[in-house]
Amino acid sequence: MAKIATPTTALCRHTNTSIHYRDKDLVSELLGGDADFVKVMAEHILARELGPDELRVLNAILIGIMEHGLTPSAIATREIYMSAPENLQGAVAAGLMGVGSQFVGTIENNAVLLAGLVALPDDAARRAAAQEIIADHRTRKTHLPGFGHHLHKPDDPRALRLIEMGREAGFKRGYIDCLIVLSEEIDAAFGKHITINATGAIAALMGEMGIPVQLMRGFAVISRAAGLVAHIAEEQARPSGRFIWDLVEKSVPHAP
Amino acid sequence: MAKIATPTTALCRHTNTSIHYRDKDLVSELLGGDADFVKVMAEHILARELGPDELRVLNAILIGIMEHGLTPSAIATREIYMSAPENLQGAVAAGLMGVGSQFVGTIENNAVLLAGLVALPDDAARRAAAQEIIADHRTRKTHLPGFGHHLHKPDDPRALRLIEMGREAGFKRGYIDCLIVLSEEIDAAFGKHITINATGAIAALMGEMGIPVQLMRGFAVISRAAGLVAHIAEEQARPSGRFIWDLVEKSVPHAP
Amino acid sequence: MAKIATPTTALCRHTNTSIHYRDKDLVSELLGGDADFVKVMAEHILARELGPDELRVLNAILIGIMEHGLTPSAIATREIYMSAPENLQGAVAAGLMGVGSQFVGTIENNAVLLAGLVALPDDAARRAAAQEIIADHRTRKTHLPGFGHHLHKPDDPRALRLIEMGREAGFKRGYIDCLIVLSEEIDAAFGKHITINATGAIAALMGEMGIPVQLMRGFAVISRAAGLVAHIAEEQARPSGRFIWDLVEKSVPHAP
Amino acid sequence: MAKIATPTTALCRHTNTSIHYRDKDLVSELLGGDADFVKVMAEHILARELGPDELRVLNAILIGIMEHGLTPSAIATREIYMSAPENLQGAVAAGLMGVGSQFVGTIENNAVLLAGLVALPDDAARRAAAQEIIADHRTRKTHLPGFGHHLHKPDDPRALRLIEMGREAGFKRGYIDCLIVLSEEIDAAFGKHITINATGAIAALMGEMGIPVQLMRGFAVISRAAGLVAHIAEEQARPSGRFIWDLVEKSVPHAP
Repeated sequence: MAKIATPTTALCRHTNTSIHYRDKDLVSELLGGDADFVKVMAEHILARELGPDELRVLNAILIGIMEHGLTPSAIATREIYMSAPENLQGAVAAGLMGVGSQFVGTIENNAVLLAGLVALPDDAARRAAAQEIIADHRTRKTHLPGFGHHLHKPDDPRALRLIEMGREAGFKRGYIDCLIVLSEEIDAAFGKHITINATGAIAALMGEMGIPVQLMRGFAVISRAAGLVAHIAEEQARPSGRFIWDLVEKSVPHAP
Repeated sequence: MAKIATPTTALCRHTNTSIHYRDKDLVSELLGGDADFVKVMAEHILARELGPDELRVLNAILIGIMEHGLTPSAIATREIYMSAPENLQGAVAAGLMGVGSQFVGTIENNAVLLAGLVALPDDAARRAAAQEIIADHRTRKTHLPGFGHHLHKPDDPRALRLIEMGREAGFKRGYIDCLIVLSEEIDAAFGKHITINATGAIAALMGEMGIPVQLMRGFAVISRAAGLVAHIAEEQARPSGRFIWDLVEKSVPHAP
Repeated sequence: MAKIATPTTALCRHTNTSIHYRDKDLVSELLGGDADFVKVMAEHILARELGPDELRVLNAILIGIMEHGLTPSAIATREIYMSAPENLQGAVAAGLMGVGSQFVGTIENNAVLLAGLVALPDDAARRAAAQEIIADHRTRKTHLPGFGHHLHKPDDPRALRLIEMGREAGFKRGYIDCLIVLSEEIDAAFGKHITINATGAIAALMGEMGIPVQLMRGFAVISRAAGLVAHIAEEQARPSGRFIWDLVEKSVPHAP
Repeated sequence: MAKIATPTTALCRHTNTSIHYRDKDLVSELLGGDADFVKVMAEHILARELGPDELRVLNAILIGIMEHGLTPSAIATREIYMSAPENLQGAVAAGLMGVGSQFVGTIENNAVLLAGLVALPDDAARRAAAQEIIADHRTRKTHLPGFGHHLHKPDDPRALRLIEMGREAGFKRGYIDCLIVLSEEIDAAFGKHITINATGAIAALMGEMGIPVQLMRGFAVISRAAGLVAHIAEEQARPSGRFIWDLVEKSVPHAP
């Protein structure tokens, strides 16, 4: 094996009597009376301080994607919790595996499209590029990430509110503008309004905040972990695991 | 299979144009300008409102157990991220599996002991019961959950601060008092001071907040999910996965 | 941290041009024309050679618990595969989390009971101990691990055949005998026949083979991994994930 | 949500007294004296019978990728097992997450390249296409999947033997031939011999057996599950988890 350089870590150091998260003393600087987990964890992940506007938006994002009822992830968590209730973390982990390409991954794909538009010099160039993106997706018959929803029509209520909060925050990077440009061009191309979904709005907001594309999914994982713990809490009080098992068994017929 | 009653869910309902988390409209009630993810998620999990004192303590708990450097969980997350970087959620899930009996599970075990003490009528009864608990653990040569730390001595800095925050919050259920009683009796029994560790303090605080024992681990999972995302962010910027692999391979000798 | 002794590993060594699994050369000794994965992996795990009778029984165990239709594990795997098809291993891992206390863990619990009976000197002592075990479980109103099945009555077809194969293998440790003793005493105590289920039979066979209790679950994990890959294969050809999601959503009503 | 067609399953049906895997009775047809788990599980996954040559090759593949010492997957499994030993399946699942793009995923990528070559009419066309593939990878400075190894040089001993076994099996689809063509063109292009690694050989063999690309990873998951159970068995006998933790902590320096 080739010689591998020694890496370093900036996340944590500790002595017998102290712990630092990055350059801050955990006890004296982070566990104060106004301790705010979202602020601390986001700054820990992003390695920079967040302003109040950014924090407000990040809280909204985390709230907005925490829960959507008996989703595939929630079903997986409940079925596993029923099978191994001694192992709560395994049930959460099982559900978190669902934070993949088909739902949350569209945040990243949309963010990549938006980053391409943001880099262009003016509205005309962005509209032309948006039209190309749309034509390309139509040719390949693939979904435009961030648009459409199997349930929410004409608009995803979360998306509208999140965009509004982004506007209120006064972000200046142009991701929200480009999302709107893309949406307008999509509507023109399809001759009808296509929903901007929550992942589209979140991609724009995260882009505005400078969150790297490859980390965007991480915030969804944190948010969904909380949502899945709520499903476990409900499962403890009113179990559904065996009902779902029985329901699925008798609803999917056998056929060779 | 016996007839299984139909369960119900109170977590979420949605229409084409709205989403409710429990009885609150997501967009108009939860995504306001003061949206607070920790408050929303905790109330979603616990099915009740939290006062500002409880929220302050919960934030501190979540911050306090988020990170402790290159722990077993963080190592697992980094090794898996290196192997499957397309799959961030899998790397987080791998690390979350470590939120088990040996570290975080002691919160629950300590909470059970404290609940037993809290139920007793007065200090004398509590001290007598604490002495029995200690004698029993010594006989069985097992660790007293919530006490001792391989690194932090004489005190776990997080534990002291968390207990202080619990005092400031004015909790009245008696869990903190019982933790102190147990600690004093341990010190007397062993003839020296034994560290109250972070999981001991957290057990007392969660007991004060009425969090059910079987849900306590859930909050640790949420907090650690955030910590592990930070490890992935660092891994993206300065990878350690291959270094650790090489280090372990050459440090563990082969022997039949 | 206290000084930690350097561990060693006997599982694998490799050079530029060779790989050894334990003390065998992978290429020249294990990849021969009669290469048998079950034999190689079992000997790798158990660190001893297995005779043909043991191998026959182990194959039967692995086959017997590989598949049982749309179980909680299979449902979890299918829901996760639908959400993240780029990540087959995550879908398998999600389902494997279900190999916990409620289904497969009963192998271990039954094996512990049987080990206690096996240690006794004669049939009378075993029957007396079995009666105590039964009385104790009835007092605590808990299931007797290895007995009863929500579906298979009067007998679990797998259990009968596995026990028969164990008899044919000529095992001599007494676990099968003790399972039968326990079964007879259960039937006497309840005044009717209670099913010996597959996990009961497997506990006895694994006990006969000297597989340590804490490793028994490992073989179930390997077997189920294969079963879950089959569910993914079927999901690729005729997807059920979205159907199950929709079915569960509309079958579990909302109630505050 | 649009109306979703009812799926069917062919994997398993069961009554009170019988279980079928696909169209075979588990007890009378699969748990016979020559019960062979690899045969049963492979036929269950692939929905067809396998001949003895295919079975021999499949056994060799499963053996060949089961173990490679203290790999990233094995390290993750050991660290998680140390943290949650009550939860063997979680430790295996953690390690299985590592069966992703960087190691095992190259089987699929190589198989796609080979499938492209196999479809061409003759050797000249295949060589020309191979040259294009190589040039393209060099331009994009990406690894050619299936070739190169950080350790094994000049040849991966597993790869040579697996290819030999494929030859002995008399496969006729042309995947092995195309792997050799690709290897020869790579050597010519680079002016030196580049290792054919195990994943390259396995891609060719799985291609020969008609295993769909999207299922190839599944067999690696099954094989690795067994390897990881062996690591847990060793961890039970001679634990390394705390040593690795300590080693990593002290070897990765803190730097802001």
